[in-house]
Amino acid sequence: MPSSSSTPACLRWIGDVGGRLELLDQTLLPSRHEWIGCPDVESVVEAIKSLRVRGAPAIGIAGAYGLAVAAAEAGRRGLEPGLAREHLHARAAELDSARPTAVNLRWAVRRTVAAVERLPADAPTTALEAAVLTEARAIHAEDRELCAAIGRHGARALAEALAAAPGAGVLTHCNTGALATGGDGTALAAITTAWDDGHRFDVFADETRPLFQGARLTAWELVQRGIPVTVLVDSAAGQLMRTGRVAACIVGADRITASGDVANKIGTYSLAVLAAAHGIPFFVAAPSSTFDLSIDGGDAIPIEQRAATEVTHPLGMQAAPDGVLAYNPAFDVTPAALIRGIVTEHGLIQPVDRERIADVLRATL
Amino acid sequence: MPSSSSTPACLRWIGDVGGRLELLDQTLLPSRHEWIGCPDVESVVEAIKSLRVRGAPAIGIAGAYGLAVAAAEAGRRGLEPGLAREHLHARAAELDSARPTAVNLRWAVRRTVAAVERLPADAPTTALEAAVLTEARAIHAEDRELCAAIGRHGARALAEALAAAPGAGVLTHCNTGALATGGDGTALAAITTAWDDGHRFDVFADETRPLFQGARLTAWELVQRGIPVTVLVDSAAGQLMRTGRVAACIVGADRITASGDVANKIGTYSLAVLAAAHGIPFFVAAPSSTFDLSIDGGDAIPIEQRAATEVTHPLGMQAAPDGVLAYNPAFDVTPAALIRGIVTEHGLIQPVDRERIADVLRATL
Repeated sequence: MPSSSSTPACLRWIGDVGGRLELLDQTLLPSRHEWIGCPDVESVVEAIKSLRVRGAPAIGIAGAYGLAVAAAEAGRRGLEPGLAREHLHARAAELDSARPTAVNLRWAVRRTVAAVERLPADAPTTALEAAVLTEARAIHAEDRELCAAIGRHGARALAEALAAAPGAGVLTHCNTGALATGGDGTALAAITTAWDDGHRFDVFADETRPLFQGARLTAWELVQRGIPVTVLVDSAAGQLMRTGRVAACIVGADRITASGDVANKIGTYSLAVLAAAHGIPFFVAAPSSTFDLSIDGGDAIPIEQRAATEVTHPLGMQAAPDGVLAYNPAFDVTPAALIRGIVTEHGLIQPVDRERIADVLRATL
Repeated sequence: MPSSSSTPACLRWIGDVGGRLELLDQTLLPSRHEWIGCPDVESVVEAIKSLRVRGAPAIGIAGAYGLAVAAAEAGRRGLEPGLAREHLHARAAELDSARPTAVNLRWAVRRTVAAVERLPADAPTTALEAAVLTEARAIHAEDRELCAAIGRHGARALAEALAAAPGAGVLTHCNTGALATGGDGTALAAITTAWDDGHRFDVFADETRPLFQGARLTAWELVQRGIPVTVLVDSAAGQLMRTGRVAACIVGADRITASGDVANKIGTYSLAVLAAAHGIPFFVAAPSSTFDLSIDGGDAIPIEQRAATEVTHPLGMQAAPDGVLAYNPAFDVTPAALIRGIVTEHGLIQPVDRERIADVLRATL
């Protein structure tokens, strides 16, 4: 019983070999919905740097398509194969460095370059073009599949929680949907899949200060899909839970340790503590590539502190006086003990402990 | 060891009988610090309605001084005593209705009118003028004393908590300072008094969405006093506590029930749950007039839902798409069990239970 009136996306390749990349300019949402063309690699790099495209999987896919833009450029200029390869390597380095900390970006660009390197030395430029686009499309398609699988497993977990608390809804934090991935997302895919499966429930979106990704992006995606959404300030989540309106919380993850501690958008930890205090199941949804087994516990995850102006100047407007300090960690760490289950493309990890995580990840290899 | 470089205030009476009222326009903070003159009662009513002056005690005092503005008007116009009394009654009714739910406003205006009614029938207009101003000044002075007493008792509670957690600071929510009262405030007075007593600690101010009273007003007051302040988004409080940087939380109250449940600005409950989860003492500071013994438990307190635009349009800028719903309760309820102590002008109520509350309030009568 799908109710989606429109499926949002954050990037698209128009045409075939020699075609072009378009990105949804997320900095303009929710007021304006504008696709920007990326005629050259410079424009792709600029879009990544200025967060027109964001979300680790989406940035990776944009990087791979960015290389397809470079290949099309080589074709248009009539570069002979040797020069075309040089051109691709130079462009790959530029794309790589657009956001130095984005692991997915480097991974996707390198994988696309490797596809070119597998071609015979005398392959014509058109073959290079085709190989790059094929690889970029494969990366995109695989991410779409990951999202679909996470959506299916997550929807089952949510359906169970919803059945246990009739009349209550699902609360999410930040944006983990089509605007952050190549498919329908992770945590948000679980929500939209449950909805498309015919479950009807309130969807609550924390606004997610400081950058309002919940209000700006998650709410926008749900409106696009025709799913009613209720936005709240982050600090109202406790009152919402206290009044019995939350059956489950589900959020994404930036990094998950071997023991199941989760680094995610600031505010996730507060939400998990509140959920535990109210006996509400708290789920994390992320592809298995999010696990970092080199780290055992969450205290070893470095927490990035971001600019004070994100706090003092919401949406660019001054909200705090000059001369104040700001505490602005981008992420926080939620200990495994507060997490009911972690949804991956391979299924639900529950309970969340070192052994179950190792089992699931071994199955992946 | 006072370090205050400047003591903020939100209203002042300039001159004596026949003088004038000035209000700090809080809607312009923190960008601009402008006193507005109130030449007539209309301008006082407008200032209350449009939140240029806010905070229950401050609104009450503004109402009493508003009547002094009306009396000065009667004097300037040379109204004979009978007409002057009629004029005052009419103006009192206008002031009363500026914010119908503000209990303090009605109380303060009626008390000032009663002072006029105690005068002999043949008292001249100048005597009416003097009586009104004297009563308004008394209301203002009494509130200043209440704040000072709450500040002293609260500072002792904070000092104890700070001693128990060396290196950690104090976290507050919303604005409960000089901008909300006729003196130094309630919860914020506890912080500034502890600081003036020579204690040195980090002061953390939640920004307090949706209206940013923490970032806009509390941070501004602390900057004025020369006390370093660190602002954070509300959802970062959990991470701040988890990293051991909070020795105590202290907040104000809008209403306290007979059993000690506290209605206060949205976000207070989330903060109290987080504090409990981290073993951090959570204090409420409020004058004894905040207790509503007609209500036993917090679930009986009606929670006002405010306009969706406060959530969807922070500082007037669109942050959420058209077509979303918003959950925007102005207050939440924190159960007594989560509150370590309630600071009143009579001292600290600890533990927070029906018996201790009744004892303290009996002493007041």
